[in-house]
Amino acid sequence: MLNEKLNWRHATKAMDPAKTVSEAKVKAILEAASLAPTSSGLQPFEIIVVTNPEAKAKLRAAAYGQAQVTDGSHLLVFAAWDNYTAERIDAVVNQMHAERGTPMAQLNAYFDGLKAQYLPRTAEVNYQHAARQAYIAFGIALTAAAFEEVDATPMEGFDPDQVDEILGLRAKGLRAVTLMPLGYRAAAGDWLNGAKKVRKPMSELVTMVA
Amino acid sequence: MLNEKLNWRHATKAMDPAKTVSEAKVKAILEAASLAPTSSGLQPFEIIVVTNPEAKAKLRAAAYGQAQVTDGSHLLVFAAWDNYTAERIDAVVNQMHAERGTPMAQLNAYFDGLKAQYLPRTAEVNYQHAARQAYIAFGIALTAAAFEEVDATPMEGFDPDQVDEILGLRAKGLRAVTLMPLGYRAAAGDWLNGAKKVRKPMSELVTMVA
Repeated sequence: MLNEKLNWRHATKAMDPAKTVSEAKVKAILEAASLAPTSSGLQPFEIIVVTNPEAKAKLRAAAYGQAQVTDGSHLLVFAAWDNYTAERIDAVVNQMHAERGTPMAQLNAYFDGLKAQYLPRTAEVNYQHAARQAYIAFGIALTAAAFEEVDATPMEGFDPDQVDEILGLRAKGLRAVTLMPLGYRAAAGDWLNGAKKVRKPMSELVTMVA
Repeated sequence: MLNEKLNWRHATKAMDPAKTVSEAKVKAILEAASLAPTSSGLQPFEIIVVTNPEAKAKLRAAAYGQAQVTDGSHLLVFAAWDNYTAERIDAVVNQMHAERGTPMAQLNAYFDGLKAQYLPRTAEVNYQHAARQAYIAFGIALTAAAFEEVDATPMEGFDPDQVDEILGLRAKGLRAVTLMPLGYRAAAGDWLNGAKKVRKPMSELVTMVA
């Protein structure tokens, strides 16, 4: 059943600007993204949900004019932490202690080691690691959209510096990683709609070591 | 319903070595991974499914002794292409032409541009990009496992060079990115089983630009 939904989805090339995804469905997709597992539970990313028409128009220009950015009703911008910091890690530790009751000594034993590993690294190395975590959530959000029968277009094709500038992300310690317009496929113009899904044969994708 | 499954799942810390995931469920999880969208449809990764006890024992040692590697019945190793090459891209183009009937001229117009962008880059830059695609499939496979009520542990904590060596990945142009043991949570020893799921409040994870 999940795979039927994944077969139904495709990277929608034209969205119907007259159709709006319901807030309930957007909420379900965002909740799925929030449930994504991330390394050490740090959730080193945020999601910006853009519905403002002026902002969407600017972002479309930064995405080389791809029309789904404005024709989708909601644009999700996945933005990763630009670095790991002691403050960011401590916030997670404190939340784990408060909500799960894990003793601070036990949390510190683990997270002090993590800090010793992460904090001396360059911001770029840490950002790249954070971005990978955002991709896990991105994959899960795409799956959730398909599950809700909402169309989505996974997008890497944009100028990240421009997106960061338009949304003021750098000042918040974030860097744009991926875009995901949400909407509904247009009746015409979506050349992937109905096209055969092309995937490597499972015999090429998967190797068994039995 | 999908989010109920995502709430059910957790990074399983102890798996019952007496329980085996059915081949039907493993197949459904692998199919979900194969349905993951990837940049330009290149699917620049493979999945190695390890059930061989000796191989699992070696991989457990390379994963700092994490017991799920051997106690899960199946270990999925997500391995990304070490580089983009003309041959790898051409294979995808030819498959798209054969299966979807897209004219070669149209495919070449797009993929020649992609080659001009990718092929001059360093192998490391291309590997990092391929690895991000593998993370999309990793997120989707984790979701599929939850959907099948199969336990899984997303793992980055291993020595990638050792895993590459054990599985002979470099000779195949692959580099290990993530591990995912599949199995069933043990009755005891899984300290995350039943623990509250700790996630940022949605108000911190999500910013609306309306």
